[in-house]
Amino acid sequence: MSDETSFLTPEVTSMPRFSGIRTFMRLPYEPEVQERDFVVLGAPFDTSASYRAGTRFGPEGIRRISSLLRPANVFHKIKPSEFLNGVDGGDIMVIPGNTEASHRNITAHVKAWAEKGAVPIVLGGDHSITLPELRALSSVHGPLSLLHFDAHGDTWDDYWGEKYTHGTPFRRAVEEGLIDPYRSVQIGMRGTVYHPNDLDEARKLGFLVITADEMREIGLQETMRRALERIGESKVFLTFDIDFLDPAFAPGTGTPEIAGFTSAEAQGMLRQLTDIHLVGCDLVEVLPALDSAEITTLTGATLVFEFLSLLAVHKQRTTSSSFSHSK
Amino acid sequence: MSDETSFLTPEVTSMPRFSGIRTFMRLPYEPEVQERDFVVLGAPFDTSASYRAGTRFGPEGIRRISSLLRPANVFHKIKPSEFLNGVDGGDIMVIPGNTEASHRNITAHVKAWAEKGAVPIVLGGDHSITLPELRALSSVHGPLSLLHFDAHGDTWDDYWGEKYTHGTPFRRAVEEGLIDPYRSVQIGMRGTVYHPNDLDEARKLGFLVITADEMREIGLQETMRRALERIGESKVFLTFDIDFLDPAFAPGTGTPEIAGFTSAEAQGMLRQLTDIHLVGCDLVEVLPALDSAEITTLTGATLVFEFLSLLAVHKQRTTSSSFSHSK
Amino acid sequence: MSDETSFLTPEVTSMPRFSGIRTFMRLPYEPEVQERDFVVLGAPFDTSASYRAGTRFGPEGIRRISSLLRPANVFHKIKPSEFLNGVDGGDIMVIPGNTEASHRNITAHVKAWAEKGAVPIVLGGDHSITLPELRALSSVHGPLSLLHFDAHGDTWDDYWGEKYTHGTPFRRAVEEGLIDPYRSVQIGMRGTVYHPNDLDEARKLGFLVITADEMREIGLQETMRRALERIGESKVFLTFDIDFLDPAFAPGTGTPEIAGFTSAEAQGMLRQLTDIHLVGCDLVEVLPALDSAEITTLTGATLVFEFLSLLAVHKQRTTSSSFSHSK
Amino acid sequence: MSDETSFLTPEVTSMPRFSGIRTFMRLPYEPEVQERDFVVLGAPFDTSASYRAGTRFGPEGIRRISSLLRPANVFHKIKPSEFLNGVDGGDIMVIPGNTEASHRNITAHVKAWAEKGAVPIVLGGDHSITLPELRALSSVHGPLSLLHFDAHGDTWDDYWGEKYTHGTPFRRAVEEGLIDPYRSVQIGMRGTVYHPNDLDEARKLGFLVITADEMREIGLQETMRRALERIGESKVFLTFDIDFLDPAFAPGTGTPEIAGFTSAEAQGMLRQLTDIHLVGCDLVEVLPALDSAEITTLTGATLVFEFLSLLAVHKQRTTSSSFSHSK
Amino acid sequence: MSDETSFLTPEVTSMPRFSGIRTFMRLPYEPEVQERDFVVLGAPFDTSASYRAGTRFGPEGIRRISSLLRPANVFHKIKPSEFLNGVDGGDIMVIPGNTEASHRNITAHVKAWAEKGAVPIVLGGDHSITLPELRALSSVHGPLSLLHFDAHGDTWDDYWGEKYTHGTPFRRAVEEGLIDPYRSVQIGMRGTVYHPNDLDEARKLGFLVITADEMREIGLQETMRRALERIGESKVFLTFDIDFLDPAFAPGTGTPEIAGFTSAEAQGMLRQLTDIHLVGCDLVEVLPALDSAEITTLTGATLVFEFLSLLAVHKQRTTSSSFSHSK
Amino acid sequence: MSDETSFLTPEVTSMPRFSGIRTFMRLPYEPEVQERDFVVLGAPFDTSASYRAGTRFGPEGIRRISSLLRPANVFHKIKPSEFLNGVDGGDIMVIPGNTEASHRNITAHVKAWAEKGAVPIVLGGDHSITLPELRALSSVHGPLSLLHFDAHGDTWDDYWGEKYTHGTPFRRAVEEGLIDPYRSVQIGMRGTVYHPNDLDEARKLGFLVITADEMREIGLQETMRRALERIGESKVFLTFDIDFLDPAFAPGTGTPEIAGFTSAEAQGMLRQLTDIHLVGCDLVEVLPALDSAEITTLTGATLVFEFLSLLAVHKQRTTSSSFSHSK
Repeated sequence: MSDETSFLTPEVTSMPRFSGIRTFMRLPYEPEVQERDFVVLGAPFDTSASYRAGTRFGPEGIRRISSLLRPANVFHKIKPSEFLNGVDGGDIMVIPGNTEASHRNITAHVKAWAEKGAVPIVLGGDHSITLPELRALSSVHGPLSLLHFDAHGDTWDDYWGEKYTHGTPFRRAVEEGLIDPYRSVQIGMRGTVYHPNDLDEARKLGFLVITADEMREIGLQETMRRALERIGESKVFLTFDIDFLDPAFAPGTGTPEIAGFTSAEAQGMLRQLTDIHLVGCDLVEVLPALDSAEITTLTGATLVFEFLSLLAVHKQRTTSSSFSHSK
Repeated sequence: MSDETSFLTPEVTSMPRFSGIRTFMRLPYEPEVQERDFVVLGAPFDTSASYRAGTRFGPEGIRRISSLLRPANVFHKIKPSEFLNGVDGGDIMVIPGNTEASHRNITAHVKAWAEKGAVPIVLGGDHSITLPELRALSSVHGPLSLLHFDAHGDTWDDYWGEKYTHGTPFRRAVEEGLIDPYRSVQIGMRGTVYHPNDLDEARKLGFLVITADEMREIGLQETMRRALERIGESKVFLTFDIDFLDPAFAPGTGTPEIAGFTSAEAQGMLRQLTDIHLVGCDLVEVLPALDSAEITTLTGATLVFEFLSLLAVHKQRTTSSSFSHSK
Repeated sequence: MSDETSFLTPEVTSMPRFSGIRTFMRLPYEPEVQERDFVVLGAPFDTSASYRAGTRFGPEGIRRISSLLRPANVFHKIKPSEFLNGVDGGDIMVIPGNTEASHRNITAHVKAWAEKGAVPIVLGGDHSITLPELRALSSVHGPLSLLHFDAHGDTWDDYWGEKYTHGTPFRRAVEEGLIDPYRSVQIGMRGTVYHPNDLDEARKLGFLVITADEMREIGLQETMRRALERIGESKVFLTFDIDFLDPAFAPGTGTPEIAGFTSAEAQGMLRQLTDIHLVGCDLVEVLPALDSAEITTLTGATLVFEFLSLLAVHKQRTTSSSFSHSK
Repeated sequence: MSDETSFLTPEVTSMPRFSGIRTFMRLPYEPEVQERDFVVLGAPFDTSASYRAGTRFGPEGIRRISSLLRPANVFHKIKPSEFLNGVDGGDIMVIPGNTEASHRNITAHVKAWAEKGAVPIVLGGDHSITLPELRALSSVHGPLSLLHFDAHGDTWDDYWGEKYTHGTPFRRAVEEGLIDPYRSVQIGMRGTVYHPNDLDEARKLGFLVITADEMREIGLQETMRRALERIGESKVFLTFDIDFLDPAFAPGTGTPEIAGFTSAEAQGMLRQLTDIHLVGCDLVEVLPALDSAEITTLTGATLVFEFLSLLAVHKQRTTSSSFSHSK
Repeated sequence: MSDETSFLTPEVTSMPRFSGIRTFMRLPYEPEVQERDFVVLGAPFDTSASYRAGTRFGPEGIRRISSLLRPANVFHKIKPSEFLNGVDGGDIMVIPGNTEASHRNITAHVKAWAEKGAVPIVLGGDHSITLPELRALSSVHGPLSLLHFDAHGDTWDDYWGEKYTHGTPFRRAVEEGLIDPYRSVQIGMRGTVYHPNDLDEARKLGFLVITADEMREIGLQETMRRALERIGESKVFLTFDIDFLDPAFAPGTGTPEIAGFTSAEAQGMLRQLTDIHLVGCDLVEVLPALDSAEITTLTGATLVFEFLSLLAVHKQRTTSSSFSHSK
Repeated sequence: MSDETSFLTPEVTSMPRFSGIRTFMRLPYEPEVQERDFVVLGAPFDTSASYRAGTRFGPEGIRRISSLLRPANVFHKIKPSEFLNGVDGGDIMVIPGNTEASHRNITAHVKAWAEKGAVPIVLGGDHSITLPELRALSSVHGPLSLLHFDAHGDTWDDYWGEKYTHGTPFRRAVEEGLIDPYRSVQIGMRGTVYHPNDLDEARKLGFLVITADEMREIGLQETMRRALERIGESKVFLTFDIDFLDPAFAPGTGTPEIAGFTSAEAQGMLRQLTDIHLVGCDLVEVLPALDSAEITTLTGATLVFEFLSLLAVHKQRTTSSSFSHSK
């Protein structure tokens, strides 16, 4: 099972990291759906953004700087490629301006990979893409727990009368029964809102909402304890909006909010998720045209590597009784 | 009629140009439709872009740097505010992702102003906005001549199956009878294409197409002579895509093509249009997030000022028998 | 009193935030002095900067990104427009190089609004502008308490022999009797200085000075407790220099100092000021040309919104006995 | 022979150009040497730069923006993929600081492809990479004609005592007998030099040198006539240093010189080369970190597409007796 | 006389150009006034700018990139250091906001060097600095001819009531008798103006004004012929405002105007000035904060090198009867 | 001993900080080796970088922004120039691509200054330069303690087979006996690695390694306590890689790692080092081309000023018995 070369080809291992075709971490590019432990997919759809556009270049930007990453995680003491067999599946076909067709493609594509057993890791694109991902994964796994890091709850009912935008996916997901809000958590909400009680709307839908202000009060450890308690043993979809981070750490995004979190805080929270059962995840709202020295895309890429590490740790644990590896 | 203060308020004339609220050239902001000689409107719609998005900030960017412009045109020896009474009408409501509703709003808004006698000068946004403008103006004026400066003909039939994108407006305009292609000209086409004969498609539709290569062969004087001959006495809509210019002169745009024209060449061509009967115009595809030192928005703003100057020269000539001014 | 439309016009509420003329938060533009609860004014004066120039574009930059802000504050659970009636008064006429005339204009303009009962919220410009603001407001309200967030005390006696620069306003303000230093606080001082005892100078003038080093020792809660104790019941002018923040959070400024504060820390401190009697405030030293992805201007705009929220909370409390609103 | 799908896969043709893994023009990625008409290779080596470093990201930058290019050339009325079967071969392994090993790898890699009949199109990297390319191709084809567009002759003997830098490759190439200077041309030299007679050195080596000043005197048509006369029927290596262009058109490079050429001029000159027998080419010195809105990389990518078009025209002509195609 | 080491120290000649302390072309730094053929001085004064500020960093920016320049001029076939003995005199003390004191210092400093026989080459700063330079040099040499390259005539009477700004120096210079307008030329005027006849004002003062439009009509050769005829044998001050260039070539400036000249055109015009008697020159309005990849500062530095080359050619000619050199 | 003018010349003290030739803090430039308390040297060598190149402009960038620094340290209540006599020695001659010669020059140059009693403060350049510095200083002082702040341990054995790169200096330093690893500390390691146990390698060599994760667990106070305990009374070389900081605080570097430290944390740690015996230090890996608003170079310059302050405090203490000063 440990096929190191599936992750980084021999050629690539010895080449300087600044060279080579930019797949995610220079994984093999495999556009054909196949049996794998995970697949990285791009969903360059940004039609639904309410302020700045341009996250369509998010997948490209994250892949580009992902070449800087080395293959092992020193915190988890693991090299994911020893436990996971994955590929970069390229980008899903989307059509600017045609939300319905784009979402349909995303659902179909993600579902096809999930049916082969692969955990899809999707690079956005704006946050509207999570809805079709959830349609795909809930059709395979049933209603999911949502673990949601973001500055915004994205549970508004509509934007300018539009029901499917980057500000509405999670209300839709509850309405469509794709997620179980009572086993779901939203973490990090902050910033100006439309009405003083905007965040209560998400709570009425059933979500556990832990705002940035609350997080600073109870601490990040306690935040994650509550989140994990909420999630329990259920199958989890992890969605990470890069604007969870402060604009100093992630300037390249469409609707930044000041007073956010550091990359160390974000990474630290993700690292506590070794016990969850992850069936899919995405990282969205990276907008390279406004980035500075690639710090936003680097953060995105590194957090995706943390997702991969979680999958590897999970795989290591679940296979350790019957399996031992040498390295 | 000559109301200098309508153009730049007294307060504004004496204030440093770096100060003040950014309407176009600090014109009065008048969102209500009213009788004026011209109105500047923003149409911040960029859903239809085929490569980079972000021209939704075009109107804001052009207005911002327009504060640098002084009120008189030394070439035409005219101060437009002495002959024209105009306002900045603000932005037209558009909805990202909803091309139909956005286009409907643009048509309604432009038509309302045109019915009051104002020449609309629209700041894009992507090139798809010209179609609803033409719908508005042809409903008021009948089928129009199109005078089109651009690197691309934008007469493709569809993009990814979509009929209404920034690559298709002029085929639609012909199909809908909004323009008379046989009195219309497309100038400046260049760059890579989908099929070797792509430009012949526009010619089949009836357009006179003068490519960048042809322009360099026959010269810019002859180019404009042919264009003016083609247009004749008809009512003209002038549409200017900023990518007519070389990316060195206009880096802030969505689908740049190298080997384009300089700002001096563009300005020089526009200045030969004093005899045309202009009923509307737009300047599109300015994408500020990719601009450098505001050179693209400055070019856009200055060319819009050339549009205004053409209107003023025309007004001066048509009113000179019954009117003389001192200044 | 609650006139929601005074804050964001109906048109604007339903329009995408990326559109529209850029007044502060798209408030109505009212250059004529009139009775209002508050007025936002720009003072684009940067002659007095000791290192980088360019804060003359600060008001424009802050207004531009303020379009991203939504109208409600989730921390204070308040929508300021329900309690406050305010406008954007545009920019005050300043003259580069002529400090005296510019300061005179600022004083006259701010005073005129203050006399109508409006709390002026001024966008700089360099920090020299606070002196003429204090002249205006102390003439209306008597000597004020100064609540000053900054990396620098700005109490030097002169710069290159010049008495009125962005490094000297608060010494002048004490000398002129505009503020009562014994009821005033300076918070956040750090960075290299001219003499090891530079900060003692401000203390000798009577100020309570809490340096960044001291803040890190006693904590931000205690810092604010001491500040509030110092201020007591007096009328307060709040001045916020954006370089209080670390350059990572606010790169667009003229004399940055490393080891500063985060936007979360700044916001958190401001939010504790609900009990002060604010008669004026400003936010200065934003230099957009050096900004990155508008993070500095966004921080500036959001902090100004926090100022507005403080005013609203204060208004809500002081009117609650005789007034109840439904929402 | 005409295998359209070899150039742009079906999937890719219908997908928006902003999506997909960035190989050059989204050609198939084939790291294994094989029989093809051409191969695009990256040589991300920048150790030898004398001023700014960073061209190691040139291949990545050119590939990235090449996604904007459409498949047909309207000037030559040709779609290269109908005549040529090519791939992106990825990057050649180079080692920063180890010129010898890097050059050896470049030679080996280029030679392997050339022996399979592929015309190598190499993306630099600094100009030192042309030497190992010439070693490879002259070993296959014998001494070559050099057609060299550049601001600098790169025929210095050494830099700081180093013999193999980006300022010396063509002196070395003559010394090693890789090129025949008497059938070679250097075009575009300008800028400050070390000694007033620096350019005479290249002439003494045998090169025809046409400086920028001379080009402006005799015209670009005559320049190319002289170049083609010089080259005659010989096998040609075409090397294009992006600093041939003016920094306004190509800011992203290491040793820019003002008073250069426009992209229209460069493209126009290349288009006159339909009769030369091209056995290899490269485009070097693109430095993305200093680019503005990708205009340098776009220029680089478009010029490489012109190289491809030349190969296609040549193929079309040489095969037209025995072959006719419909499209 | 030919002291090569005075220009570039031996150490510096052999060091990579990216290293070393940034004086202009790494000339020796000599703050003390002394006998030299020329001195490079910075005048980082930008108080008088009417739009963007920041040219105070112009001297620093030009010096920085001047390290890229090599010591010989291939057009004039001359290495200035063989004929000229010069230094970098550092910056003149200026005081932001205090135009009078700053101008007084500039006059004193420039005069002191001129009295020692040095031709001062001053790096701006905004264009107001030319007035105190002219005061200095006319006090030494008598009234001068002005050779002025610029987009703006800078002969307005005042700006916001201020008499000494970057828009007024040449009216003041005529009034003060520092220059003889009838032996002076202004070249390159373009852009929007305050009144249609603005440029006639300069003509009324006596200047020969050749606008950009006229230059394009008569050609650059004829332009320079007329300029040289006008100047005749008189002593000349050459002032070059970087906004003579198009913003594509010089984005880093304060009041850019589109439709300007290329760097090749500017360089070509300067190269025809070998016969003028130059007693001083400056290059102004470079604003590094808005530059792109240092193309503006590089242009500025290269044009200053052309100034130096003119001085060297002149020296070579005037000393050739009694002196011959070998190299 | 206290020679204030040796630090900032009188001229410079009174001049605006934005003016003057950019030596470090405008120290006198003295390329000749001489007796001084300290010397600032640039080592613009970046051949050995494994990802981005360009730190060759690090010394220039740090010097440039160092003009913003004022001469006194308010934390230590000291003005270093009162206790230290130092100069800027300019840049050491390096040769791109020739690691051996460059390192040899660095060793010779640093040794020469050290033998004169100067503490060398070297500005990188990439981290490979520390090895030749250690060779120089250990030859003068014997094996040293290393105090190493960095995101990476830089103790890999080789990179692509190369032994002398920016990832290998400290393994080489141990092998060559230049440092005593058992009295050395590495602080701040984080980021992805090649093998899960990469950091154990450094521990096997003898280093005390305190990773970023450990630092967050034990606190920064305890971190420094352990470091100081380790170092004891030995002679220390302090090396600071700017990527110790988070990319939000220091974007301009070659191999950034997210989840790093703030500038306040870095500064705070350095300030606890008043008791160490510092014989040399460097600050490396600053890459200005990727900086944002000079925040990275400003951080670098300020930390170097903290180094200087440590030297001054040490000097003050060691000389206080026989010396008292007033100021």
